[in-house]
Amino acid sequence: MLLSNGAMRHKQLQHLWKLNWGARKPNSTSRIMRPDDANIVGNVHGGTILKMIEEAGCIIGTRHCNTQNGDHCVAALARVERTDFLYPMFIGEVAHVSAEITYTSKHSVEVQINVLSENIVTGAKKVTNKATLWYVPLSLKNVDKIIEVPPIEYSSSEQEEAGKKRYEAQKFERLETKERNGEILMSVSLPDRQTKEPYTVEYSQSSLIHLVGPSDCTLLGFVHGGVTMKLMDEVAGIVAVRHCKTNIVTASVDAINFHRKIKKGCVITVSGRMTFTSNKSMEIEVFVDADSLVEAEKGKYRAVTAFFTYISLDKDNKPLPVPQLKLDGEEEQNRFEEGKARYLQNKAKRLADKERHQ
Amino acid sequence: MLLSNGAMRHKQLQHLWKLNWGARKPNSTSRIMRPDDANIVGNVHGGTILKMIEEAGCIIGTRHCNTQNGDHCVAALARVERTDFLYPMFIGEVAHVSAEITYTSKHSVEVQINVLSENIVTGAKKVTNKATLWYVPLSLKNVDKIIEVPPIEYSSSEQEEAGKKRYEAQKFERLETKERNGEILMSVSLPDRQTKEPYTVEYSQSSLIHLVGPSDCTLLGFVHGGVTMKLMDEVAGIVAVRHCKTNIVTASVDAINFHRKIKKGCVITVSGRMTFTSNKSMEIEVFVDADSLVEAEKGKYRAVTAFFTYISLDKDNKPLPVPQLKLDGEEEQNRFEEGKARYLQNKAKRLADKERHQ
Amino acid sequence: MLLSNGAMRHKQLQHLWKLNWGARKPNSTSRIMRPDDANIVGNVHGGTILKMIEEAGCIIGTRHCNTQNGDHCVAALARVERTDFLYPMFIGEVAHVSAEITYTSKHSVEVQINVLSENIVTGAKKVTNKATLWYVPLSLKNVDKIIEVPPIEYSSSEQEEAGKKRYEAQKFERLETKERNGEILMSVSLPDRQTKEPYTVEYSQSSLIHLVGPSDCTLLGFVHGGVTMKLMDEVAGIVAVRHCKTNIVTASVDAINFHRKIKKGCVITVSGRMTFTSNKSMEIEVFVDADSLVEAEKGKYRAVTAFFTYISLDKDNKPLPVPQLKLDGEEEQNRFEEGKARYLQNKAKRLADKERHQ
Repeated sequence: MLLSNGAMRHKQLQHLWKLNWGARKPNSTSRIMRPDDANIVGNVHGGTILKMIEEAGCIIGTRHCNTQNGDHCVAALARVERTDFLYPMFIGEVAHVSAEITYTSKHSVEVQINVLSENIVTGAKKVTNKATLWYVPLSLKNVDKIIEVPPIEYSSSEQEEAGKKRYEAQKFERLETKERNGEILMSVSLPDRQTKEPYTVEYSQSSLIHLVGPSDCTLLGFVHGGVTMKLMDEVAGIVAVRHCKTNIVTASVDAINFHRKIKKGCVITVSGRMTFTSNKSMEIEVFVDADSLVEAEKGKYRAVTAFFTYISLDKDNKPLPVPQLKLDGEEEQNRFEEGKARYLQNKAKRLADKERHQ
Repeated sequence: MLLSNGAMRHKQLQHLWKLNWGARKPNSTSRIMRPDDANIVGNVHGGTILKMIEEAGCIIGTRHCNTQNGDHCVAALARVERTDFLYPMFIGEVAHVSAEITYTSKHSVEVQINVLSENIVTGAKKVTNKATLWYVPLSLKNVDKIIEVPPIEYSSSEQEEAGKKRYEAQKFERLETKERNGEILMSVSLPDRQTKEPYTVEYSQSSLIHLVGPSDCTLLGFVHGGVTMKLMDEVAGIVAVRHCKTNIVTASVDAINFHRKIKKGCVITVSGRMTFTSNKSMEIEVFVDADSLVEAEKGKYRAVTAFFTYISLDKDNKPLPVPQLKLDGEEEQNRFEEGKARYLQNKAKRLADKERHQ
Repeated sequence: MLLSNGAMRHKQLQHLWKLNWGARKPNSTSRIMRPDDANIVGNVHGGTILKMIEEAGCIIGTRHCNTQNGDHCVAALARVERTDFLYPMFIGEVAHVSAEITYTSKHSVEVQINVLSENIVTGAKKVTNKATLWYVPLSLKNVDKIIEVPPIEYSSSEQEEAGKKRYEAQKFERLETKERNGEILMSVSLPDRQTKEPYTVEYSQSSLIHLVGPSDCTLLGFVHGGVTMKLMDEVAGIVAVRHCKTNIVTASVDAINFHRKIKKGCVITVSGRMTFTSNKSMEIEVFVDADSLVEAEKGKYRAVTAFFTYISLDKDNKPLPVPQLKLDGEEEQNRFEEGKARYLQNKAKRLADKERHQ
């Protein structure tokens, strides 16, 4: 049967829409920051932003991976690249999060995110974050099956080549961290803080325990990566405040790999310990352990780990010096050295980026 | 001094931006619908949509009204035009809310909103709502002052004319309803506190009524005891504030027995009445009644009761004297005596504990 | 088969872990107190603490009761012993809740909870609460079945004996209160639906009562219109379900005028009553009344009113017939006629719109 002119145009438009809008059109979200999104001073938690970022990534990733025939799927967060928080955000400001798909491999999707803060009263606007997230599409029918990702079109072969390089680099790093995770000891327990000496690792180390609720989960029944990151930022923030007793804000988050899913009905224990201090920053290592309450035979398992960096601010939001971390034993000394190496590497990278842009 | 070419272009761009983007650019929000946004069957509540619509309107309205010099302001909702919900939305779908300013009078802003639901798995999309909201900008310095609205530019005089007609029509209707509201009898709602004598039991007795949501429940689908206790404390706190009009804090809670479970989808009524006052404390009896919406034949049942004790604090967190409860009738007298007995018993127990520890 | 040394040690450790850690290891939770957890002055609500206490108890209780073979289960709260709040807690402080299982009977678990407040800035710490909770494990397969509790080991027979005494004492008190509960008059709460005739206005009329929190408000300290509308839809939905006992969805909302602002710290009563039914729709009138807790002299005032229309859906989301509203008295008859006029007017308007667009 022949379609009428109008119906044909409609079909064509729909097709174009799917290709252009459905698959790749940047997705944009905005929300007013509320008191609960922020600390006492009014600074929005880095974790609130990370949660918004991940929701935007999940939407665009899931949408893209369902633009072909075959199994329906949900995009699950596999990795977040290192993220810098350029400016603090405040209660009452509007956070705008825009997401775009920038690379696809056979089984993963790269999403680039920009976060803009807007003071709708003064009109001031700032880019506060950029983030890169990697998603993997899991079948709705069989959650252990990763389906194939429909390819995107690139505006140039250079663009595709650059994406491929980012893909290879993160793949390599993910495999590497998988090893490292296995070795980590679960030494972080809740000490009685009063008996500890200030500025030591033991003094500030902290934990949060959260019972996973229905609204924390995706359609597949697993915890949203953003929910986990919000809790990680919360615990790291507590460690930072305990150490320096001032107003602190998230400065950056190192790459995070999500190796193991966390199911609805789990209890998650999020623990943080300080690993390194520079003159004006603190690095905190965060562990996420999941524990099915009901299926106790499965035991507790390490789901995610990451490094968060915080800075301390005075009343005018200017950076304050940070008290030096007091180390005890070889292990803490080693972690400090490793933290220092990461710090120097990032510093060098920032300087190189700066020079390149001048 | 002359501005360089670049600086001039920047200024011009900024100006244009303010005119076009800052003032009128459609604002767009999207969010995944979660279990807490929906009823048991998975249909998203109309109220969830209305809340998102209003947030989008508040953002664009506030942004627009601050694009001129003078007082900063916040756009306050004055009216929502009749709104139709064309299709139901479901958990897991993404709600896209886009807002645009379509008319401005001297003191009000008309915002048009479109809501689109997108099933990011099947790709199905539907316009589920269109809404028209009217906002009035209130000064941040003086909340009773309505400031002037910067005018927008219209693409045609017909467009402006149509907007003016909508403005006049809603203004007329608003005045009309103002009248009608005055006449309506308050037959549904609770008794008016104004007719009661202060410091009586009737004067301060209060209720909260809450619809149980998914996040209130355990894996078994019953309300967490902690959720119930939080509501009980909330209502007892309201009773205490109504009685003494000061800052109050919970001092103790008597033993609470949870005899009957409360199921997901119930409405719970939590009521409190003052039973006893000492010089520095108030005892409030709290009742929790559950009522299944669907299984009405089961009727309302008493799920929990408890006694909460509050004290009143001054600005330095020192206890304040509490106005004595005025009793009316034998029943209130008896309850007061029983409360006094509990009070004296606890006091004696505390003293005994103290002595034992000395 | 013989296990290797390493494997044996692993098995033994796992077993020990289950016995000692999984079963009894104190469980610890901490969380920063946020604005929504506290009253206007910044004092954390006792209810927030009670909720945290119960969550910690539920986690440790559920975990313990699943450390044996057999049915999986969830620990349900049966009783909370008398609890004293020794010191107020404030926004920005960290609440630490630690839980430990201290006694098990055949069918119940006693959990001891300690709450410590920590000002992470000054380092000040205070024990603010101690609580004792009793849980009963309910089978996940059959919610009415109480499963057996795995026994814990006691450090001494005196300890076990003391636990047994506490168990007997609470058991006795629980039975006693069960009696007492039956006698209590329901004088505070709303009329019982059971005494009303189905399909009448009185039968389905409902209220929600909500204390306005910080996150409900704009920068000006007034409730967001969207928050109000969400509650209005919630109560109208309850009325609709009570009338037709099916899955209902919002079909439309008539124009809403926001005449009077609602301030932070108010209690809002949202009431709904059915006014009209057509074959396939129900109209519900909703009233929002605000009541300042502190400025009682202002009295309660009507802030908003509106008409919501609902339809009833079957399992395939097709509209179902709606039972006709039974009217009682002239007033209800008049409201029905007015509702019918609105219904016919909207129907005519929809038809006219349709024709215009063809």
